[in-house]
Amino acid sequence: MIGLWHQYGHGVGMDQGEFAFIERMARLLPAAPAGQTWIGDDAAVLEGGVLFATDVVVEGVHFDFAWTTAEDAGWKALAVNVSDLAAMGGSPWAAVVCLVVPPDRPGLADGVGAGLAEAADALGCPLVGGDTSNGPVCTIAVAVLGRSATTGPVLRSGARPGDAIFVTGPLGAAAAALRRMRQGATPGHLALQRLRRPAPRVVEGQAAAEAGAGAMIDVSDGLAADLGHICDRSRVGVALVAASIPHDEGVDLGDALHGGDDYELCFCAPDPGRVRAAFAARGLAQPFRIGTITAEPARLLVADDGSTCVLAPSGWQHGVSGPA
Amino acid sequence: MIGLWHQYGHGVGMDQGEFAFIERMARLLPAAPAGQTWIGDDAAVLEGGVLFATDVVVEGVHFDFAWTTAEDAGWKALAVNVSDLAAMGGSPWAAVVCLVVPPDRPGLADGVGAGLAEAADALGCPLVGGDTSNGPVCTIAVAVLGRSATTGPVLRSGARPGDAIFVTGPLGAAAAALRRMRQGATPGHLALQRLRRPAPRVVEGQAAAEAGAGAMIDVSDGLAADLGHICDRSRVGVALVAASIPHDEGVDLGDALHGGDDYELCFCAPDPGRVRAAFAARGLAQPFRIGTITAEPARLLVADDGSTCVLAPSGWQHGVSGPA
Repeated sequence: MIGLWHQYGHGVGMDQGEFAFIERMARLLPAAPAGQTWIGDDAAVLEGGVLFATDVVVEGVHFDFAWTTAEDAGWKALAVNVSDLAAMGGSPWAAVVCLVVPPDRPGLADGVGAGLAEAADALGCPLVGGDTSNGPVCTIAVAVLGRSATTGPVLRSGARPGDAIFVTGPLGAAAAALRRMRQGATPGHLALQRLRRPAPRVVEGQAAAEAGAGAMIDVSDGLAADLGHICDRSRVGVALVAASIPHDEGVDLGDALHGGDDYELCFCAPDPGRVRAAFAARGLAQPFRIGTITAEPARLLVADDGSTCVLAPSGWQHGVSGPA
Repeated sequence: MIGLWHQYGHGVGMDQGEFAFIERMARLLPAAPAGQTWIGDDAAVLEGGVLFATDVVVEGVHFDFAWTTAEDAGWKALAVNVSDLAAMGGSPWAAVVCLVVPPDRPGLADGVGAGLAEAADALGCPLVGGDTSNGPVCTIAVAVLGRSATTGPVLRSGARPGDAIFVTGPLGAAAAALRRMRQGATPGHLALQRLRRPAPRVVEGQAAAEAGAGAMIDVSDGLAADLGHICDRSRVGVALVAASIPHDEGVDLGDALHGGDDYELCFCAPDPGRVRAAFAARGLAQPFRIGTITAEPARLLVADDGSTCVLAPSGWQHGVSGPA
């Protein structure tokens, strides 16, 4: 997960080279045995379909106590991990946490701990162990175990040309809320809640798996970047329909495409009817269909007037073609 | 795991209250189902005997780049986690890592990654995923999965009066090496190696489990503190024989009792003959018998002259009784 600050120009360094670093690590490490997936997906898939994932949130990178409480930071640290299990179509099993706090901030550890405990209860992912240390900034590293759906884990690599692309909810609210706060304005309650207490889409992920989704990812780094990972792994392209990308009022398309921290799921499935039925059967809100997987590897955004632009992982390259 | 610096007067705050914090967290969280163990042991024991543990190492708390390389830090981060599995008598299964590095230190992430990869290979614990972020100091949070021995996991709670207490190797070398470096001296190669590249005692832990060990812990915070955890959980006391506590030349008894970062195992077993046979059968060096578990909850150290003192978790309370 790339920090929000990075996306707004803060926190250069590792983040800018994170994907390159992961590639170098993957080359250092042995390949996964057949039937398992190690580095490179939302969660590793181990023997028996056991899912294993980890994500860290760091004060000043992923959150700031100017706009987040210790409890919210604890919640978020667990929620973003459970979101990685959701993105595999899996179920949470258990979590452990490493909590680093500055020694001169009494009460911080207990606040984070309370938020972790609340999230563990609400998200059905019991916290079963941990470690604590001092350090200069609050750092919360959670690892989670999960179980795959009976239909098997949904990887990033199974998108096929013709698949319909869905997202489970409106995008960009967290990024818009953050930008507003940094401008000194007060975002709406719901947008703030998205930023502070993201809700991982576990049941939606299970419905997508059951509906035959071939690829899925959680939208943590922005739709364009995360869908890009699916394209990379599946060796496909996308054609997104700009007008179909859901975002709340006051959130612009740029936030919806590039804002991180939404924690909705994006998935690709060959049979939209089966997707609708699976979501309906579980009493879930219907997901939004936002485009189609293409054999051609380009990543295109189709505007209302029929013009297309190339969708860069973050930012835009305009004017590839005029109106059709 | 408590940082070494703490033991030498650095890193106050959370560390001083770590055990109290863990107690408060345990009260916030639901109890483990029957047959499982959550917070309070070296690793959590989940359904099916799956072991799950996490430990973080922080620059300036657990290591310092003045005396450790990036590769060593990566090695240590994985090794101390595998040691938690060893302390349950378990086998490593897989690891994930959250790596936080300062953005202005290029090469650091790759160095840590290389050390992690080397340890993963050497210790048989494949690294299957991770996350990276920027932060002010290098922070490496590893989580590991393991499998229990067929005889079941060895907890901290199963020590019984009359059990013989063993340690798998000499203690205190890492602490002595650290002290020497902080005094500007150069420690010996082997002592430095203990500090930089601890070797978790996985096979020894399995031998102890097979030999009927009722309680086990890895010596990360110092023998007195760690054996104290066994006493707390098992509601027993100990009588250690000072002369029998193994330590290398140049390492004093204080280091052996209170120095952290040894990563030898300490275990309690009712039948010393069975312990010797299990270690011999696996071609392992024999463990050192250092004392006996007592029904009386006192923690005593018996000196050569027969006098006893009360063993505090760190430091001493002298003069409880004179020579017998």
